[in-house]
Amino acid sequence: MLRFVKRTSKKVGLSPGMLVHTGEQKMEKTTISIIAYDPENLTEKELPSIEEAYPYRDAPPVTWININGLHDVEIIEKIGQHFNIHPLTLEDVVHTAQRPKVDDFENYLYVVLKMLSFEEQTGHILSEQISLILGDNFLFSFQEQKGDVFETVRQRIRLAKGRIRRSGGDYLAYALTDAVVDHYFVVLEKMGEKIERLEEELLKEPSATTLETIHGLKREMIYFRKQVWPLREVLNWLVKDQSSLIKETTQVFLRDIYDHTIQVVDTIESLRDVLSGLQDLYLSTISNRMNEVMKVLTIMATIFIPLTFIAGIYGMNFEFMPELKWKWSYPLLWLVLVSIFGCMLLWFKRKKWL
Amino acid sequence: MLRFVKRTSKKVGLSPGMLVHTGEQKMEKTTISIIAYDPENLTEKELPSIEEAYPYRDAPPVTWININGLHDVEIIEKIGQHFNIHPLTLEDVVHTAQRPKVDDFENYLYVVLKMLSFEEQTGHILSEQISLILGDNFLFSFQEQKGDVFETVRQRIRLAKGRIRRSGGDYLAYALTDAVVDHYFVVLEKMGEKIERLEEELLKEPSATTLETIHGLKREMIYFRKQVWPLREVLNWLVKDQSSLIKETTQVFLRDIYDHTIQVVDTIESLRDVLSGLQDLYLSTISNRMNEVMKVLTIMATIFIPLTFIAGIYGMNFEFMPELKWKWSYPLLWLVLVSIFGCMLLWFKRKKWL
Amino acid sequence: MLRFVKRTSKKVGLSPGMLVHTGEQKMEKTTISIIAYDPENLTEKELPSIEEAYPYRDAPPVTWININGLHDVEIIEKIGQHFNIHPLTLEDVVHTAQRPKVDDFENYLYVVLKMLSFEEQTGHILSEQISLILGDNFLFSFQEQKGDVFETVRQRIRLAKGRIRRSGGDYLAYALTDAVVDHYFVVLEKMGEKIERLEEELLKEPSATTLETIHGLKREMIYFRKQVWPLREVLNWLVKDQSSLIKETTQVFLRDIYDHTIQVVDTIESLRDVLSGLQDLYLSTISNRMNEVMKVLTIMATIFIPLTFIAGIYGMNFEFMPELKWKWSYPLLWLVLVSIFGCMLLWFKRKKWL
Amino acid sequence: MLRFVKRTSKKVGLSPGMLVHTGEQKMEKTTISIIAYDPENLTEKELPSIEEAYPYRDAPPVTWININGLHDVEIIEKIGQHFNIHPLTLEDVVHTAQRPKVDDFENYLYVVLKMLSFEEQTGHILSEQISLILGDNFLFSFQEQKGDVFETVRQRIRLAKGRIRRSGGDYLAYALTDAVVDHYFVVLEKMGEKIERLEEELLKEPSATTLETIHGLKREMIYFRKQVWPLREVLNWLVKDQSSLIKETTQVFLRDIYDHTIQVVDTIESLRDVLSGLQDLYLSTISNRMNEVMKVLTIMATIFIPLTFIAGIYGMNFEFMPELKWKWSYPLLWLVLVSIFGCMLLWFKRKKWL
Amino acid sequence: MLRFVKRTSKKVGLSPGMLVHTGEQKMEKTTISIIAYDPENLTEKELPSIEEAYPYRDAPPVTWININGLHDVEIIEKIGQHFNIHPLTLEDVVHTAQRPKVDDFENYLYVVLKMLSFEEQTGHILSEQISLILGDNFLFSFQEQKGDVFETVRQRIRLAKGRIRRSGGDYLAYALTDAVVDHYFVVLEKMGEKIERLEEELLKEPSATTLETIHGLKREMIYFRKQVWPLREVLNWLVKDQSSLIKETTQVFLRDIYDHTIQVVDTIESLRDVLSGLQDLYLSTISNRMNEVMKVLTIMATIFIPLTFIAGIYGMNFEFMPELKWKWSYPLLWLVLVSIFGCMLLWFKRKKWL
Repeated sequence: MLRFVKRTSKKVGLSPGMLVHTGEQKMEKTTISIIAYDPENLTEKELPSIEEAYPYRDAPPVTWININGLHDVEIIEKIGQHFNIHPLTLEDVVHTAQRPKVDDFENYLYVVLKMLSFEEQTGHILSEQISLILGDNFLFSFQEQKGDVFETVRQRIRLAKGRIRRSGGDYLAYALTDAVVDHYFVVLEKMGEKIERLEEELLKEPSATTLETIHGLKREMIYFRKQVWPLREVLNWLVKDQSSLIKETTQVFLRDIYDHTIQVVDTIESLRDVLSGLQDLYLSTISNRMNEVMKVLTIMATIFIPLTFIAGIYGMNFEFMPELKWKWSYPLLWLVLVSIFGCMLLWFKRKKWL
Repeated sequence: MLRFVKRTSKKVGLSPGMLVHTGEQKMEKTTISIIAYDPENLTEKELPSIEEAYPYRDAPPVTWININGLHDVEIIEKIGQHFNIHPLTLEDVVHTAQRPKVDDFENYLYVVLKMLSFEEQTGHILSEQISLILGDNFLFSFQEQKGDVFETVRQRIRLAKGRIRRSGGDYLAYALTDAVVDHYFVVLEKMGEKIERLEEELLKEPSATTLETIHGLKREMIYFRKQVWPLREVLNWLVKDQSSLIKETTQVFLRDIYDHTIQVVDTIESLRDVLSGLQDLYLSTISNRMNEVMKVLTIMATIFIPLTFIAGIYGMNFEFMPELKWKWSYPLLWLVLVSIFGCMLLWFKRKKWL
Repeated sequence: MLRFVKRTSKKVGLSPGMLVHTGEQKMEKTTISIIAYDPENLTEKELPSIEEAYPYRDAPPVTWININGLHDVEIIEKIGQHFNIHPLTLEDVVHTAQRPKVDDFENYLYVVLKMLSFEEQTGHILSEQISLILGDNFLFSFQEQKGDVFETVRQRIRLAKGRIRRSGGDYLAYALTDAVVDHYFVVLEKMGEKIERLEEELLKEPSATTLETIHGLKREMIYFRKQVWPLREVLNWLVKDQSSLIKETTQVFLRDIYDHTIQVVDTIESLRDVLSGLQDLYLSTISNRMNEVMKVLTIMATIFIPLTFIAGIYGMNFEFMPELKWKWSYPLLWLVLVSIFGCMLLWFKRKKWL
Repeated sequence: MLRFVKRTSKKVGLSPGMLVHTGEQKMEKTTISIIAYDPENLTEKELPSIEEAYPYRDAPPVTWININGLHDVEIIEKIGQHFNIHPLTLEDVVHTAQRPKVDDFENYLYVVLKMLSFEEQTGHILSEQISLILGDNFLFSFQEQKGDVFETVRQRIRLAKGRIRRSGGDYLAYALTDAVVDHYFVVLEKMGEKIERLEEELLKEPSATTLETIHGLKREMIYFRKQVWPLREVLNWLVKDQSSLIKETTQVFLRDIYDHTIQVVDTIESLRDVLSGLQDLYLSTISNRMNEVMKVLTIMATIFIPLTFIAGIYGMNFEFMPELKWKWSYPLLWLVLVSIFGCMLLWFKRKKWL
Repeated sequence: MLRFVKRTSKKVGLSPGMLVHTGEQKMEKTTISIIAYDPENLTEKELPSIEEAYPYRDAPPVTWININGLHDVEIIEKIGQHFNIHPLTLEDVVHTAQRPKVDDFENYLYVVLKMLSFEEQTGHILSEQISLILGDNFLFSFQEQKGDVFETVRQRIRLAKGRIRRSGGDYLAYALTDAVVDHYFVVLEKMGEKIERLEEELLKEPSATTLETIHGLKREMIYFRKQVWPLREVLNWLVKDQSSLIKETTQVFLRDIYDHTIQVVDTIESLRDVLSGLQDLYLSTISNRMNEVMKVLTIMATIFIPLTFIAGIYGMNFEFMPELKWKWSYPLLWLVLVSIFGCMLLWFKRKKWL
């Protein structure tokens, strides 16, 4: 459950703007990499210290500064001072329990995204907070750890594919957001496959763990939805409100991601409905089986209990039981027993229990 | 489940505007057919290559260009270049996992529809993406495969029935959308019949597969709803917002389809409610039966267990059991047994179990 | 279920404005009756043919033309031509599967209503489509068959009661709508009585058919709601939007029906909640009974199974069973049996099962 | 159920404005009482006939005219004529099945409220319709019967407590509405106590009637909500829309009641959630008990059935059963029986059934 | 339940503005403490009487006056008179059953908050009403008892940390609200841990009390939500509407708390969904167990009942039972019994019951 409620108690009571990294420290050393480009030139390098990124603030081409690792709060603070970032933004960057949101600080836009991945072994959806700070001619991206879904974007920049080298930082921000949202479909696909397998299993041979699996999937769906739902508003804001930092040509692309997000949310809802349906199906399968078990018991008991009673009667030791002495008693009794047995069978047939 | 989550992983990470066909290739060769008409003249032919469609871009009468098959990405690209279509639109045309939507690109309107059909054997609703691109004097329609619901529209054009030959491309776009939505009622009718048969079966003799059928129908309903629901907004947009491409005389007709769509969504909701009701009914039928089974068992066991106990007593071999020697013991015992039996029956009658 | 999904397949693929009557033909011959009135004069007659209604189009007093029976499509077409009605309106008049709606065609208003009645034998709510076309000085009403709820309105016109003779066609349209909505309360009352009887039955002695009855009532409620819900928007539109055909003095009356409609919808929701509650109550009553049945079985079996076992022991035929020879074995055994019996009873008492 | 659906059939088909009292006649004679006041003077008396109230229409101080009993339709009609009240308002006054609402007739405001009380014996919430007509310098209040929650308001007027004597009719209307809404909290408190007692009972010893009680409370909650919910809109309208009859100083007080109403609705929702929770708890308590009952049965049967079978074997009368003659057979058999018994116990222990 | 419905009956019928403290008196003596500060100076002291706070009304630096204990209504009244507070505000301060809300009285803002804490022993969420009155240069905070979450704010003022000493009363109000909302995360975390433990317990060994725990947690969640939900609107109002008392630089901070509140509400919803899932899981676990119990019973009974019957047959005492005399009867019978036993086992294996 603690994925739903990130621990924030270390932060309680601090003054706003105090930088405290609240996630777990997922890597040893913060790494800073830079890609600066215009249609003709491309610079890509790892920076040993944040100070070397300072000159890019006023350099005209687009510069993408990517920070991996958020525990080194000093670096974040320096960025804040030099690039003129509001303390609340810096606080949200390192406090990795934000909802997706967009904040407009006139000189820059601050966007929080959630990068999701699906861990096959545990069946858990993992979430990593991506913060984007889009200024006039720079774009910061902050990640909690190495490994991201942006490699294809880097390739497109390196190979000058598509319009990315000809466009500004807003298009780059779009490209990164698009990469994140595209990856939601991958997660969705994996969830879909799991649900499909589950449905097949349920119709063939439901086991006691089936419901736990359904429960687990439902919980993941709740978690998934919680991460994606607020993104709708973020993108709607970016498409509707004219921040001067987003060019009009980029808005048509943002509308595209907006459509994708709606589709993700839509599909999550549908899958949740399907999961509820599977749960109902499972519960009634259990009921049906119970019914079958009870029928077997009832048929056996109902047939043999009276027969056993009759046998018991003639097992009594009374001295004066005339039937015991008759010659044909025993075969006659068998006749009686067999006909009772037959009547019972007929009765159960008529009741459609057999 | 994979119908809910179309595979899109081939696309992940590509730059926007890259054309990748994501559906399955459903036909061998892309076919292009053209119907150009004005009130007096009519040209209808199959085109061997897309280049032959170029002259129609600036020809004044209405031209309807229908493309069957989306896997030949080159053709789509050529259309894009010659008819001045935005790369994002082309991407959505071949990426057949779109939600119904409308995009306004000033020089053209892009509309995504879902053509639904009901496959009797599997009980599945099948969906095919129809893309319409409505320009000044041309209308493109893109389909994934041959076979559509537009034959009646073609007939009306050929026979110059109604106002279709006297109207522009917007009316043609309306006529195609209307054909698609009209077909939803056919699917709805078939679902309705299935549900009706199911209800009769449920009231007569519910079987173990009844719930699976209910579950299947509910899933189809979720799928149906997912395909139709966004169409409401699309049509609302077309009716409300004044795109210069839609004439006012056509808007009254669009309002009509809007009403139909609302009616479809409404009926889907009602049928889902009815299906939920059927499921509850089924579950309680199971409970009722279980109750009946248990009652039979309880009555039999409760009556015969004490009787068998008494017979057991007098089957004991103690030497000093005075009753065994009495002359009237045996008939007396029968009297006792019969009266216990009678009391039990009375008691069950009073409890209304018989 | 087919009440939810009216058959519309005959219509699929026709061009809009083609008149096809889709309901069942409920009467033999279409009848046309006319009531023309102003504060002083009143003309009421049956017309042999629609042509005789033509002069009333431009006659200044209010004329109410009522058409019973919609299968004679020619009559409808003639009305359309002479009174200048849009083909889409005519199509909706004869296609009786419309939702309640209002369409504003500048020269007239088109209103679709649903007249509901409750069929006691089947417990079904029956629905008949009423179309009103309100022009400058005429009002058409189209019904599927004879028999309506408008008799009281006719009486008020004949007797010049209230303001009806002093008001225009818009007030007449109001009066008819009011009569239809008033009748919803009658249906609601009958449903309410059924639910009340059901609740009493459920608390006294629930039977196996109780749940079917609940299910049936829920389905009727879904159907009822589907017919009434869209009327809210219709009336809201009439109250809010200033169509020149509706005078301001009439709007205060329309607001009144709007309130009534809200009340109907409200009550339907409440009754649905109550029905859900009854269903839960029924299901738990079944569970409770099952519990009681199981308790009886368990008590009987638990008491007598050990006793029977003991009797079985002393029914064995071993030669060396010293107890069999003892003089007080038999009475002692009875003591043991009775005390076991007593202990069991005490234990069940303590467990509150008795 | 009939509380949800007030009988309105007497009214069906009447022309609007016809006064028909639809509630039950709850008192013998209509009484009219008047309180006229300004900061200095106070007149309070019972009027023998409505005509004596006429002079107060144009008298400057505030006059509160309270009518108890609505069956005497003539009085209502006279009020309508003299004080210039619209017939629809009069109709709503006597037709006591209105939802709470506010109608603005320029020269007066018409407000419908529901005065609720809780009847301890039946556990029912009773509702009485209060109609307020607020004119320039008079306020009519109509009640169905004697006995109301306004006594404290009368006291405040008599004692000139607070601002009531210094304010106008709008403040008086506020004070009455406030008294009605305050009383909702009393009802809420009583419901809350009932639910609390129910929860305690449920956790200690749930009985078969517990669910009926839950069902009853849920129904009352539905009824309560239905009476209060529309009041939100009424008060919102009064706070937002500037009717000239409501002074700005009074609006701050109306906002206060608005907050209270929200709180009532809120609490009703919370209590409904809690009741649903109690129902789930109850149902699973039943399931748990059933489980326990079944376990006892299964343990007893499973242990003794094989033992009884073995005893049965040695009760057979075959001549050639060597074991019967062995000396140690009987004690050996006991050993076997006891060890089977022990093994079974161990097995049940391991399964945690004991 | 009474936490949901605070007792308000003492208040019913009083005129508005009458001060009646409705909570329980939680401390003996009302204490008044004052912190007045500007960037350079700081005064902090306990005041013996409220009169000593009067001079601070017009003193330019920010003054925070904190009142602990609300039962001494006189103090509140004096504050109202001297600081010009509306009687309705004073009433709401002492009537501690308010929903969170904000009221704008031009010369001051009145904000109601709920300070929540989690009581480990009972598992209850406790709520205390905090009222803030923000004037031009003073801020009143009213608490029901000693002990609050504001200590960190006091520290920041004393140490002149962050911007608090350089900002006005609006920033102080923000800081207090932030402290309250931050504490919601602490409560959320504790709830999350409880739910996590519960889930583990449920998957390992669910006990009869598990459902009661789930029920308890759900009730706390309802209560939590009820306290936090209205805060959203309060903060939205503060961010959107420009009260002159809130400076623009503070609004960016308020937007931050608004985000936090959304996150709290979001997480509450997710946890409620998870709890519902746990409940379903629990119920089906019970069903599964019942199934297992029934299977054991059925297998035992079904195997041994026919065997016992056969043994009973040969326990009968008929004189003419030829089998009894045959030499190989007894071993043969064993053969029969064992093969019946074997067949049964095979049959159960095939049915997958073993």
